[in-house]
Amino acid sequence: MVAMSADRSNEVLRLLEDRLATISDVNSARKALNWDRHTYMPEGAVAARAEQLATLSRLVHEMLVSEETGELLFGALEKLEPGSESSDLVRRAKREYERAVKLPNRLVEELARATALAQPAWERARARSEWASFESHLQKILPLQQETAECLGYEDHPYDALLDLYEPGAKKARLQKIFEELKAELVPLIREICALSDGDRSPPLYGRFDEEKQEGFVRKVVSDFGYDWKRGRLDRVAHPFCVSLGGPGDVRITTRFDPGWLSPALFATLHEAGHAMYEQGIDPAYSRTPLSGGTSMGVHESQSRLWENLVGRSRTFWSFYYPRLHETFPEALGDTDLEAFYRAINEVKPSEIRVEADELTYNLHVLLRFELEVALLEGELSVSELPAAWNARMEEYLGVVPENDAVGVLQDVHWAAGLFCYFPTYTIGNILSAQLFDEATRARPDILEEMGDGEFGTLLGWLQENVHRYGSRYDPDDLIERAIGRPLATAPYLHYLKDKFGELYGLNAA
Amino acid sequence: MVAMSADRSNEVLRLLEDRLATISDVNSARKALNWDRHTYMPEGAVAARAEQLATLSRLVHEMLVSEETGELLFGALEKLEPGSESSDLVRRAKREYERAVKLPNRLVEELARATALAQPAWERARARSEWASFESHLQKILPLQQETAECLGYEDHPYDALLDLYEPGAKKARLQKIFEELKAELVPLIREICALSDGDRSPPLYGRFDEEKQEGFVRKVVSDFGYDWKRGRLDRVAHPFCVSLGGPGDVRITTRFDPGWLSPALFATLHEAGHAMYEQGIDPAYSRTPLSGGTSMGVHESQSRLWENLVGRSRTFWSFYYPRLHETFPEALGDTDLEAFYRAINEVKPSEIRVEADELTYNLHVLLRFELEVALLEGELSVSELPAAWNARMEEYLGVVPENDAVGVLQDVHWAAGLFCYFPTYTIGNILSAQLFDEATRARPDILEEMGDGEFGTLLGWLQENVHRYGSRYDPDDLIERAIGRPLATAPYLHYLKDKFGELYGLNAA
Repeated sequence: MVAMSADRSNEVLRLLEDRLATISDVNSARKALNWDRHTYMPEGAVAARAEQLATLSRLVHEMLVSEETGELLFGALEKLEPGSESSDLVRRAKREYERAVKLPNRLVEELARATALAQPAWERARARSEWASFESHLQKILPLQQETAECLGYEDHPYDALLDLYEPGAKKARLQKIFEELKAELVPLIREICALSDGDRSPPLYGRFDEEKQEGFVRKVVSDFGYDWKRGRLDRVAHPFCVSLGGPGDVRITTRFDPGWLSPALFATLHEAGHAMYEQGIDPAYSRTPLSGGTSMGVHESQSRLWENLVGRSRTFWSFYYPRLHETFPEALGDTDLEAFYRAINEVKPSEIRVEADELTYNLHVLLRFELEVALLEGELSVSELPAAWNARMEEYLGVVPENDAVGVLQDVHWAAGLFCYFPTYTIGNILSAQLFDEATRARPDILEEMGDGEFGTLLGWLQENVHRYGSRYDPDDLIERAIGRPLATAPYLHYLKDKFGELYGLNAA
Repeated sequence: MVAMSADRSNEVLRLLEDRLATISDVNSARKALNWDRHTYMPEGAVAARAEQLATLSRLVHEMLVSEETGELLFGALEKLEPGSESSDLVRRAKREYERAVKLPNRLVEELARATALAQPAWERARARSEWASFESHLQKILPLQQETAECLGYEDHPYDALLDLYEPGAKKARLQKIFEELKAELVPLIREICALSDGDRSPPLYGRFDEEKQEGFVRKVVSDFGYDWKRGRLDRVAHPFCVSLGGPGDVRITTRFDPGWLSPALFATLHEAGHAMYEQGIDPAYSRTPLSGGTSMGVHESQSRLWENLVGRSRTFWSFYYPRLHETFPEALGDTDLEAFYRAINEVKPSEIRVEADELTYNLHVLLRFELEVALLEGELSVSELPAAWNARMEEYLGVVPENDAVGVLQDVHWAAGLFCYFPTYTIGNILSAQLFDEATRARPDILEEMGDGEFGTLLGWLQENVHRYGSRYDPDDLIERAIGRPLATAPYLHYLKDKFGELYGLNAA
């Protein structure tokens, strides 16, 4: 709360900041327990840790929706000049408060209980590819999500109410337009490419890759990016994630290593480092306030995807790093040259699993989920019809019919976790990553040359200056306008994809 | 809260249990953050983590001293049958509540602030052996400790008020008698031994010991003891400790490895495992209640010292493990045989540092601190006179004058941390460890034979049955009576020491 000193004379604001700092501290503790749960917690701790996490979540909610918080918020807001940092802070806190008070305790608890039961059920169901055993859980969660949307309120569509939790200001209608634009270009492009390629799995990414050496390699790359190890660390988990444990001084990444497959370690680590550098770049003065943390999931994803794809799957990047990777794995990579490797990491191949999808097909996986969620929320689609609807759309958009539900409708944890309307933030991130990269390289032409030398200071500096440092101060649309002078739009992203994959597959790029 | 179901009809009790469970969860979160601080936290997180720890401590205190907790406590107590588990639970909670409400918030905060500042100051002062820079901190802490004692209240001596925080029911007068008994026997015994030995550092413990191999060895021993890895883990830290993160399902130990010195890894790990097995052995039904956790620091120390010394420095134990240790370090241990190794790990040698002291001299280090604390609390000794008083007593009891204050009065963190009157629990633990081991081997004569085969199931089983499972249900004196049928007494411990070291040094054991 360094930056707020100008408003120190405002006693109500000071009390509010203290209260929000307490809430933030408890929330950071909750995140630390969660990090530990995924990294080092012994298995015997599962039950006790679940209680601890539930207790901390409840305390955060109780402190947020308390009368005292409400009074301080409205009291503080009266005395503030619009546009000041303090006013942005209070506005953001007020939104969280107003959202939280709209939800009855009963609903919050029912949803917490339903999702706590649904997640292990989902894990078992996925392991056995047994939709029926998960269906009943989703039957309970869907109406609770619909009720949540009704409580939160919306103008046009219940989807808007839930989407706003992850992407403030985004609307279903705008997403629909975005997906139409993507579909119109990507579906034919993917068809064209698939007609050309033989569909074999690209050999250079498979083989024997010592895990310690993989770790050494990705640690070096992430260091070169500018991830600050004094304010973070890297640990191994089953499902990689990034977490900020209370401001830019402690932003940890996690990853996984597959000894027979290079992709997860490479791209998951670069991806999580992208998230982490965003959090490390936020103004430290925002720590322990609602302005700490990225402004939305979509903007967050733009950072991870930028480093993973725009940088990490580019020819320029690998012109520097491939010789080093080859040195690390001379046997496994054998006589694969830079070009063959570049082609392997950018192979377009429609497949069942979203998280393993290439850049072209990825967004169709999201589109499918978006359409199904809309239909579910509207009541046009019932939970029991979901697997058939999933498979039909997979065939339509990607020409793939999942072999079973485990690699189909059961593949993601999101619905079990109550995260309806979250998926589109991945596509927003993809689109925005291209716009930001375009603007950064336009403003600082050195970026591309530096990338070819394994240097990223100018790129990271531009992102820090135009995106990171603001934390949650500006809503996504506002932040995007400030950073690139125009709103979110698909054209630059589509241009990037058609350019890159047109060249890769020898098509006449549009 | 499984075991409390019989009282479920008591609604007040149920509400109290919920509240205590919440307090326990937040406290477990605090301990998890602290574990992380010492193991894996990046250095950039220091400031934010300090805020988080302070916030969680404050919330625990606020919830404990709230009117609501008080009303529930007294309401629940009315309806309970004395001697039931629920009544023991409420009685323990009431003691914590009554202690906490006696301390004004101002005093709690002043002490928190003073010790938060004193600890880094102590670290710097110790590193530079610069008493003067720490003295001013202790000048502030001492009156706050005196005030704490006055607020808590006592019958005979302020020492009793503070000692009771760590060792419920213990009194300064009784400690004085205990130390008199120890001093009377140990001082002449140590003199006699020192007159015989040449004072050289025992060579087999020094040399080159690969850290990974050290870790492998101690992990094996601790597994043999019966430490359950599914409910715990081992990590490396600068100053080893053990912590329970919310019940017997998550009890972690930490240790350190010195590549040139075998003792720290061996004995610190065995010591911490002793603490950990106590916590792992507590009735799981007590989790999230004030009955979870060991009943006192002295009883806790009896467990760590029993495994470290009565087991881990015995000839029987090493008759099994020394061949294995030698196999692990054939070069460093060379032609050292079991007997030479046994003598090395039990060398009596008065030295400056408590935590490195042998079994005979250890308690004199504690006695010295006890006497100085009494004099400080009484006002008989001023803070500025402390270094001289320290050195004078060191010379009197151990014939050693510390080379400088870093290895003298500045060696322990306790006073900087506000832990006055804590040291004697180490000696209570030593005394009790001998009594418990005597009783266990009397009741189950197989224990010694098993120890010689690297088996400890009967010993651990006896401890679980008679000590561990009760958690904090019984106060130390009550627990000791139940376990061994008589009160804490120095005779068995002195007998053990005279027997062991008389044989080792060829004296006419009394």
